Amino acid sequence: MSRAIVLFAHGARDPRWAEPFEAVAARVRAAAPGSPVVLAFLELMAPPIGDAVERLVAAGATRVDVVPLFLGTGGHLRADLPPLVDALRAAHPAVAIRLHPAIGEHPAVVEAMAQAAVAAAGLASLGE
Amino acid sequence: MSRAIVLFAHGARDPRWAEPFEAVAARVRAAAPGSPVVLAFLELMAPPIGDAVERLVAAGATRVDVVPLFLGTGGHLRADLPPLVDALRAAHPAVAIRLHPAIGEHPAVVEAMAQAAVAAAGLASLGE
Repeated sequence: MSRAIVLFAHGARDPRWAEPFEAVAARVRAAAPGSPVVLAFLELMAPPIGDAVERLVAAGATRVDVVPLFLGTGGHLRADLPPLVDALRAAHPAVAIRLHPAIGEHPAVVEAMAQAAVAAAGLASLGE
Repeated sequence: MSRAIVLFAHGARDPRWAEPFEAVAARVRAAAPGSPVVLAFLELMAPPIGDAVERLVAAGATRVDVVPLFLGTGGHLRADLPPLVDALRAAHPAVAIRLHPAIGEHPAVVEAMAQAAVAAAGLASLGE
């Protein structure tokens, strides 16, 4: 099984917007040197998720994990993304495409945001 | 000096979208029991940041830290938020209103997202 990871983000007009997402991708890539790790976007930035997955499958991926780099789960993840993933599954029935929850719902990400907010505001850090 | 923290998020139509933001607010509130900690939104959810800050100032806040719960810094944080903050500063010259960078640019948040993505994809966790 050849695995790949797609980090799915919203996209924005300003290229600097993508910097933290590129940093996450670099860190995940370092942790999974045998698996391609790519960023893909809903809009305004390239590649769109369809192109990203097509390329990974053409390169031999048989399992693709789609991890949304979104904080909350709103219309983009509930309504926009599932049909895109369904179309890719239909086009590639032999490839396991797994759609994961929004990264912002992960307790460790919530905790890191809270810690960072407390530090930014110059308050005492949360006990760790 | 009476301090308050505004956690500024985008907002969405789906109320469930706000859950991770509410979790961050609860965690920050626990760490700063003496300071009001409120969520405020750019659009689609209430309160807007203007109302939130007005209420905090009316309650006696003399310093307000605005921490954007955004992953990247695009048009919303570069173009939409600064004039809102400037207007609040002009209306309340005796109140120190500090605008902080996007939470997603904080290295600990990047690291937590990477860890969560690796865990979600079922790969070996990053060395810690």
